[in-house]
Amino acid sequence: MTGLPGSELSGRELAAQIRAATAARAAELTATGRPPRLAVVSATADEASASYVRSIANAAARVGIDCDVLHTSTANGVAAALAQLADDPEVHGVILQTPLPDGARLADLATVIPVEKDVDGASPLSLGRLAAGLPAFAPATAEAVLALLDHYEVELHGRHAVIVGRSVVVGKPAAHLLLDRHATVTICHSRTADLPAITRQADVLVVAAGRAALIGPDHVSPGTTVIDVGTNATPDGGLAGDVDPAVAAVAAALTPVPGGVGPVTTALLLRHVVEAAAVGG
Amino acid sequence: MTGLPGSELSGRELAAQIRAATAARAAELTATGRPPRLAVVSATADEASASYVRSIANAAARVGIDCDVLHTSTANGVAAALAQLADDPEVHGVILQTPLPDGARLADLATVIPVEKDVDGASPLSLGRLAAGLPAFAPATAEAVLALLDHYEVELHGRHAVIVGRSVVVGKPAAHLLLDRHATVTICHSRTADLPAITRQADVLVVAAGRAALIGPDHVSPGTTVIDVGTNATPDGGLAGDVDPAVAAVAAALTPVPGGVGPVTTALLLRHVVEAAAVGG
Repeated sequence: MTGLPGSELSGRELAAQIRAATAARAAELTATGRPPRLAVVSATADEASASYVRSIANAAARVGIDCDVLHTSTANGVAAALAQLADDPEVHGVILQTPLPDGARLADLATVIPVEKDVDGASPLSLGRLAAGLPAFAPATAEAVLALLDHYEVELHGRHAVIVGRSVVVGKPAAHLLLDRHATVTICHSRTADLPAITRQADVLVVAAGRAALIGPDHVSPGTTVIDVGTNATPDGGLAGDVDPAVAAVAAALTPVPGGVGPVTTALLLRHVVEAAAVGG
Repeated sequence: MTGLPGSELSGRELAAQIRAATAARAAELTATGRPPRLAVVSATADEASASYVRSIANAAARVGIDCDVLHTSTANGVAAALAQLADDPEVHGVILQTPLPDGARLADLATVIPVEKDVDGASPLSLGRLAAGLPAFAPATAEAVLALLDHYEVELHGRHAVIVGRSVVVGKPAAHLLLDRHATVTICHSRTADLPAITRQADVLVVAAGRAALIGPDHVSPGTTVIDVGTNATPDGGLAGDVDPAVAAVAAALTPVPGGVGPVTTALLLRHVVEAAAVGG
């Protein structure tokens, strides 16, 4: 750790570095006649989701990546759109936006995304390859957790990383990435008995539970580095993490929300698209 | 738990129950003209491995499952054999035996096994589907851990399960299975600092590290149920687990080696073959 106790682990500088490298790579690819292209499939009219998709499309445009957004309203429509994108040689990355139509599951629909275009690591094959140590894109959010820890030079080898949340998009892939880095990994969730007793043991605490202020000062120790993956809407239209900001007074360091994991996630998603374009096509 | 403190959690009774149900199902399938068939691909001259393959073939024969063993000596030979078995409608289950030729990786070669024939959960797709909660065969060893815990009515919901070992064939899939059952899960390994401090917290301790007597009495608490996945060859030709038998004097219960996880694993592998035959063909 280079930071002081209680220091804020902003993701903005790291995100800017990744964006700059991605823009340079996108320009090279475009100059060689292979402009990188991302497609987002959305099946929701949810305004928060639509706003997120717009922000991805804008961020893509700023680094020189073309972005198509395909709207549909049914699971069959999603499957058809994904199948078409799988076969389109001009599309290098495919994202399936949530929420999905009732009864549809991300992992189920995402099986149609070819692993080499699965830039947000949504398909079970990508997750399995990640767990098995084979090449695959990790979900950008899970990879952002590791990228931030590396950026701030947080030691992982032999350290105890505790993850709160067992989702297939963050908790589980983050566990595999942390294991690969030789951390001891504990995965907690809503059924965990005495959560504070476990989280207080963490050298690194990754919180991806989707509940605002779930983690308070009692959940951390002075040595803990806290990565807050939560993005909960606040009544005033803002964003709150899963971690009470008062945790900063106890923990060694804490990522802010917004401005921590979020910008790094978007930047990594776009880096994945240029990586996919560089390999494919 | 139905057992007394320090009780031995034998796998023999459970394995016999699974074998009996599997034999009945195999007879039904054979009577309807769909005899269940397993194929084992082996690329090793290792005697321990050959003996294990013979024991699988014999166990299959005893429950009415045909078993072919294909020998080859190169990674290309393995890939060709697996591709041929993938297309053979009369083969319902495929096992790729380890060790593999130098430089070949199980997860890599196993990508060729179709998920519906992958009865030992070796392919990354099976692992990813397992993690994502989609239908897939779990590696039989990892499933045997859960089957034994269920057989002896060990509570998992909200309890702390500690796994020692992060392999793709036991540690990682066992973690996903235990998370599905709402356990809090910690994965330890050779780089874990202060292993006893973590394993002593376990309500359930699963040891799959491949090191004889790695876990001693100091590693467990009176409430701990210990599942020993280790199968280490002893100088006298016998088998020793990863857990020192002296642990039985401290822990609540312990699986023996041999006679614990092993027979349940073989029985589950054969159950997977009849399940695959019942669905396919």
